Amino acid sequence: MWDVAEELKAMLVFAEHRYYGESLPFGEDSFKDSQNLNFLTSEQALADFAELIKHLKKTIPGAENQPVIAIGGSYGGMLAAWFRMKYPHLVVGALAASAPIWQFEDLVPCGLFMKIVTEDFRKSNSNCSESIRRSWAAIDRLASTSSGLRGLSQMLRLCSPLTSEDIERLKDWITETWVNLAMVDYPYESNFLQPLPAWPIKVVCQFLNNPDVSDSLMLENIFQALNVYYNYSGQVKCLNMSEIATSSLGSQGWSYQACTEMVMPFCSNGVDDMFEPQQWNLKKFSDDCFSQWHVRPRPSWITTMYGGKNISSHTNIVFSNGDLDPWSGGGVTKDISDTLVAVIIPQGAHHLDLRANNAYDPKALLLARSLEVKYMKQWIRDFYKPSRRRH
Amino acid sequence: MWDVAEELKAMLVFAEHRYYGESLPFGEDSFKDSQNLNFLTSEQALADFAELIKHLKKTIPGAENQPVIAIGGSYGGMLAAWFRMKYPHLVVGALAASAPIWQFEDLVPCGLFMKIVTEDFRKSNSNCSESIRRSWAAIDRLASTSSGLRGLSQMLRLCSPLTSEDIERLKDWITETWVNLAMVDYPYESNFLQPLPAWPIKVVCQFLNNPDVSDSLMLENIFQALNVYYNYSGQVKCLNMSEIATSSLGSQGWSYQACTEMVMPFCSNGVDDMFEPQQWNLKKFSDDCFSQWHVRPRPSWITTMYGGKNISSHTNIVFSNGDLDPWSGGGVTKDISDTLVAVIIPQGAHHLDLRANNAYDPKALLLARSLEVKYMKQWIRDFYKPSRRRH
Repeated sequence: MWDVAEELKAMLVFAEHRYYGESLPFGEDSFKDSQNLNFLTSEQALADFAELIKHLKKTIPGAENQPVIAIGGSYGGMLAAWFRMKYPHLVVGALAASAPIWQFEDLVPCGLFMKIVTEDFRKSNSNCSESIRRSWAAIDRLASTSSGLRGLSQMLRLCSPLTSEDIERLKDWITETWVNLAMVDYPYESNFLQPLPAWPIKVVCQFLNNPDVSDSLMLENIFQALNVYYNYSGQVKCLNMSEIATSSLGSQGWSYQACTEMVMPFCSNGVDDMFEPQQWNLKKFSDDCFSQWHVRPRPSWITTMYGGKNISSHTNIVFSNGDLDPWSGGGVTKDISDTLVAVIIPQGAHHLDLRANNAYDPKALLLARSLEVKYMKQWIRDFYKPSRRRH
Repeated sequence: MWDVAEELKAMLVFAEHRYYGESLPFGEDSFKDSQNLNFLTSEQALADFAELIKHLKKTIPGAENQPVIAIGGSYGGMLAAWFRMKYPHLVVGALAASAPIWQFEDLVPCGLFMKIVTEDFRKSNSNCSESIRRSWAAIDRLASTSSGLRGLSQMLRLCSPLTSEDIERLKDWITETWVNLAMVDYPYESNFLQPLPAWPIKVVCQFLNNPDVSDSLMLENIFQALNVYYNYSGQVKCLNMSEIATSSLGSQGWSYQACTEMVMPFCSNGVDDMFEPQQWNLKKFSDDCFSQWHVRPRPSWITTMYGGKNISSHTNIVFSNGDLDPWSGGGVTKDISDTLVAVIIPQGAHHLDLRANNAYDPKALLLARSLEVKYMKQWIRDFYKPSRRRH
């Protein structure tokens, strides 16, 4: 964005979503009272952006008659796309990077996400995904005896020893690690969710190249793999299961949003993917939401509000997706019209295109970025065309 | 709508706006607590319509894949237009009859509304508007003595005698009567705000054909004119100033909406119109809102939310306006694009086109209605075109 802003002589504005970062409408109490959470919705976020744009246009000399482009990645990419849909008078277009606007209801199969994660590991080395697939049963076998449980804690160098009640949480934590690795499988050293080497899945999979090993060796290998993710710096003495990889991205706010509007069905079957079979269970999800936040989700609302797959009457949105990114499964990966276009980035992970220029950027990425800039320039040209000025 | 529905083999659904009619979300307490009023917004109304359409499509056999058209008049016309703008995936188009979507901020001159009212009376007879223009000073002169005040109450056959504190309210009440007459100046007997004869302004102006009369005679004439509006049936014994002509349309709900989102600036200058000069005073308006509802208006919000004059990226909305209707001043009376079109109804009052067919319908009205139907049929045809099915 910094590079393109310079090219387009644009001002960059990073708007912080309310309830994230420092934007806490009720200060420290923002998450304490469910009444205080009523303003944590995507609609409110879009309205905030609308007010912000109008405020900036009014107060910054020369800004008033300038075109604005919405840009975002992931949830921010959904917001960028939705903002263009709902406030087309305020932005001439939107770049929605890795925006899974169809990861709702039954718009895409609930298993697609985990299938793409698996694919990423399999492509690195088919023994790798197979090792992970077999690891779950190995964990169960070890956890079935108290000595096995002790061994498991030691093999994984866990900071606190496991009890048998921890096993589901352990598996969830490992699962989340593989998912996160798929999201951040970038072609160079990076530090988005964690400090990581270039192509981290390739590094991880070096330790998971043989599925036909004893349970103990399997778990030793799993440890080596996890250690790439949690201890690339080499400073960590033990692995901490309560470390949630994405905490810095505001998991509290997202948990509430997932329990109200942003209901994303996920599932796995262990056949098309390397995970334990798990159905999407809306009832259980809803009950968990109720016990955590005293709210119940509205799984259809996002589709009602933002149109689901019926969005062809909108214009000027670029949906970009990396084909390694599990979120691409819920993204727009085919052109919908001349002005609602999909940009696919081969070998791309989660919103790779929004990252700074890098010497190791693959050619396909450079191509995708230049395509995105081409569309932005077109939107700006159309804005200045006398016939349709300032729509 | 009944006639056109039959022609299009359509189902008619009348959705009641929450907080109006019987749709009171907190029962009798809906207007008692300002917390209870938080759901009285145009955005909430649109969301309700979206939920309703999805519900009907899901529950009515055969409805699921049918195109839907939004239709409304006045505020309902604004909602119809806004619904197509915000939920284009749920309706293929909208007929927005007499929808003053630009009666906000400074999108149109605040005096235009009263100028059109005046024009309606002047066109009937220029002595008529001039009589009304001079009546205000006549009222003031009479009200300045206690015998004059008594006379005034008698001349106007008021149910309760006036005190000098009532004079502003009296003038407001008379003003509202002229405004309402301009809105309902229909070509045949009707009963929208009140039972009225055909072309009521013509009838009223028969009594106001000489502006050069004594104050007493002037007020006798004003009474005869008011009596047309309040006593067409001939049953009324005295005129009641506290009778608000539009109460049945839910003035309580509208008052709250006008004090929050729907801030419509009105003014008069006594030169371009026949009313006493009155500037638009946002501060006073806001203070009145605060004392009545404990809220303060957000005069820019509607423009921020719905785009003001920058709506050309939307499609498939017909804006119809009668040229007699004072609300046409804030309406869309010129085509914005091929698919955002204006239909003007010469000699038409407030949403005349939505009224039932009548033997006295002017030719221009029949033409306007057939144009509206032509557009609706086009939207339906486009919906069934295989290339853009179900956007």
